[in-house]
Amino acid sequence: MATQISPLAPAVTPTLPPIKGVRLASHAAGIRYKVRSDLMVAELAPGTTVGGVLTRSLTASAPVESCRVHLKGGSGRVLVVNAGNANTFTGRRGVADVETTCAAAAEVFGCKPAEVFVSSTGTIGVPLPVDKITGALPEVKAKLSEAAWADAAAAIMTTDTFPKVATRTALIDGKTVTINGMCKGSGMIAPDMGTMLAYVFTDAAIAAPVVQTLIAAGADKSFNCMTVDSDTSTSDTLLMFATGAAGNTVITTADDPRLAAFAAALDDLLIELAKLVAKDGEGATKFIEIRVTGAEHKAGAKRIALSIANSPLVKTAIAGEDANWGRIVMAVGKAGERADRDKLTIAVGGTTITRDGGPVPDYDEAPVVAHMKGKEIVIEVDVGIGTGSAIVWTCDLTHGYIDINGSYRT
Amino acid sequence: MATQISPLAPAVTPTLPPIKGVRLASHAAGIRYKVRSDLMVAELAPGTTVGGVLTRSLTASAPVESCRVHLKGGSGRVLVVNAGNANTFTGRRGVADVETTCAAAAEVFGCKPAEVFVSSTGTIGVPLPVDKITGALPEVKAKLSEAAWADAAAAIMTTDTFPKVATRTALIDGKTVTINGMCKGSGMIAPDMGTMLAYVFTDAAIAAPVVQTLIAAGADKSFNCMTVDSDTSTSDTLLMFATGAAGNTVITTADDPRLAAFAAALDDLLIELAKLVAKDGEGATKFIEIRVTGAEHKAGAKRIALSIANSPLVKTAIAGEDANWGRIVMAVGKAGERADRDKLTIAVGGTTITRDGGPVPDYDEAPVVAHMKGKEIVIEVDVGIGTGSAIVWTCDLTHGYIDINGSYRT
Repeated sequence: MATQISPLAPAVTPTLPPIKGVRLASHAAGIRYKVRSDLMVAELAPGTTVGGVLTRSLTASAPVESCRVHLKGGSGRVLVVNAGNANTFTGRRGVADVETTCAAAAEVFGCKPAEVFVSSTGTIGVPLPVDKITGALPEVKAKLSEAAWADAAAAIMTTDTFPKVATRTALIDGKTVTINGMCKGSGMIAPDMGTMLAYVFTDAAIAAPVVQTLIAAGADKSFNCMTVDSDTSTSDTLLMFATGAAGNTVITTADDPRLAAFAAALDDLLIELAKLVAKDGEGATKFIEIRVTGAEHKAGAKRIALSIANSPLVKTAIAGEDANWGRIVMAVGKAGERADRDKLTIAVGGTTITRDGGPVPDYDEAPVVAHMKGKEIVIEVDVGIGTGSAIVWTCDLTHGYIDINGSYRT
Repeated sequence: MATQISPLAPAVTPTLPPIKGVRLASHAAGIRYKVRSDLMVAELAPGTTVGGVLTRSLTASAPVESCRVHLKGGSGRVLVVNAGNANTFTGRRGVADVETTCAAAAEVFGCKPAEVFVSSTGTIGVPLPVDKITGALPEVKAKLSEAAWADAAAAIMTTDTFPKVATRTALIDGKTVTINGMCKGSGMIAPDMGTMLAYVFTDAAIAAPVVQTLIAAGADKSFNCMTVDSDTSTSDTLLMFATGAAGNTVITTADDPRLAAFAAALDDLLIELAKLVAKDGEGATKFIEIRVTGAEHKAGAKRIALSIANSPLVKTAIAGEDANWGRIVMAVGKAGERADRDKLTIAVGGTTITRDGGPVPDYDEAPVVAHMKGKEIVIEVDVGIGTGSAIVWTCDLTHGYIDINGSYRT
């Protein structure tokens, strides 16, 4: 579908190192696409713990509801992800198709169905050709490799124009543990969720409840601070698997001081992935960081930042490289949060534009115009009434978005 | 700016009849535009009552704040509206400019400054050239006419591609009273407000508190059920003036049974105007009516309808004539209102597409595809859990919107 790589794609895609206890494979199952891989399977070693964050959509997909149940067990052995079909709003058959997939994977990989995690992404409302997935599992198992990260990340793409991966290391008990992450997402991207699909793998030994705490906290600082088009997906899924193969003494409480470096590395990795999604927003030509300070409280700051990030008028102005800061004022005003027009300060690209309820005297637009021509736009808003702050990432709204979404199914 | 008339514009623009006690004039004041009228003045006869609804934006314009104060007096003698400059976020100078305008108009027209209502629409953050307005008032007064409705409606346009007017009559005390309305608006249009700018005039004799009740109730059924791009304006203003010249005995309570026909005619006129705004939504090629039934309550139904109406993915699919109903499911799910995936019924153009949590058996897309090619799209959603219902009007999201808003200030 997408023919051109986003101009905001990173120059170099990192090569992910192996993680003990994780083997992956991708496969062209022919679910919707003809000439590309559309199925990704990860096998996790026995003892792998899992935590996750799922969409809060009330029309969530059948795979999301299955993950919600399976997360309660805390044990993850197989991850099965297909692109091209979201298995969403497919009725009782959709639910049965997930159960069929879990049962087949449990049989092939030798685990319990409740240890299988399924995600589907693509068109809504089309029955899943589940036989293409279950029939391929033995062949996929034979292809499993510790090195197939790039292929796996490519197999889960839909309108994405580049694969999204990141890696970090941290020390626990003096042992180096590795964290690998991958995600997909380009449209139907808005917070209040995990994200589209994102998977994090580590060899650290961490008990399932602690994995859950870590990933939920990390999602709040990363994917939940990012929006492309304000449309929350029915399939948003963020899962983290910890194989324990690194050999550290298992961490069983979230306040264990040994977790500090790991949690920081995890947050950093999640933020990198979230930014990659905004940078591959459908039709994106500019990456936008919105920093709000001085709001009544943190939640208010975030709502103001999201109001700016989701405003079609702000996003189209940035696409047109127009420093139309009046639209930022509008978006602050419509957020419904406490604000005082006469205390609002707005800066773009580090240049202060407004103060005391109007443009600064002798405002020189030249540096702002130059900043707008760049690929990374920074908008700072100080509400001037409190100490709440938030950062949100998004992209501009261009003809490309209309092109992609006016004909997605055709 | 706008060069092409919306394909959704009405074939015929109604000619508005005179209303006793109302005289209007338009004028090319050179506020921003060079070759068109950009100033509209209406003179109201002594005794005219006024009510209104203003934006709830927390970064409201200086004219809106002035109207908010003047509405408390309930008496309206002069309306001064300029296009090309919103006098928003213009600091203390902006407030002073409104006061200057009110004082000058009071002088020229022989009334109190508190009986002058000012609106400004156009670019945010640019100081208003107030002298061009005050200096023109004597000349404008000399041009006042009972017939200048079409010119007046044209003078307040910004990105509008056609003037928006409507007229109705009703009987009170056996006397025919007339209601004329005009409005402007095309982008930065979302509920939680009056609307962009809308003015209603009647010769009925109605006390100011009753005018206020009528216009607030009418706004809830019309402008507050309409969205173009989810962006709430800083200038939204809806004012209604009642001159009393029709000669009915003055109506002093909102529950007066003589008001029933008038209120119905007023609501009908406001709905017509609101629909015209959606039909002139920036870049619009399709008018969309979204009917939600079976929600938990009325407010929930409206939030679901607005979630669909404001979804960029729904709007771009309709622009592409793609019956991508999965995006409607998504928008219901993200609305945050009670919903049950398996009870949701969706119909487009009268054809039922989903039932029991999935597509209806043997769903035939052909009539839906044919409906999508038309100019008026009807989406019906039955949530299936209660009795709350709502209707919302909007338009599609096209390349035209990006074109208009990527370069609005240039």
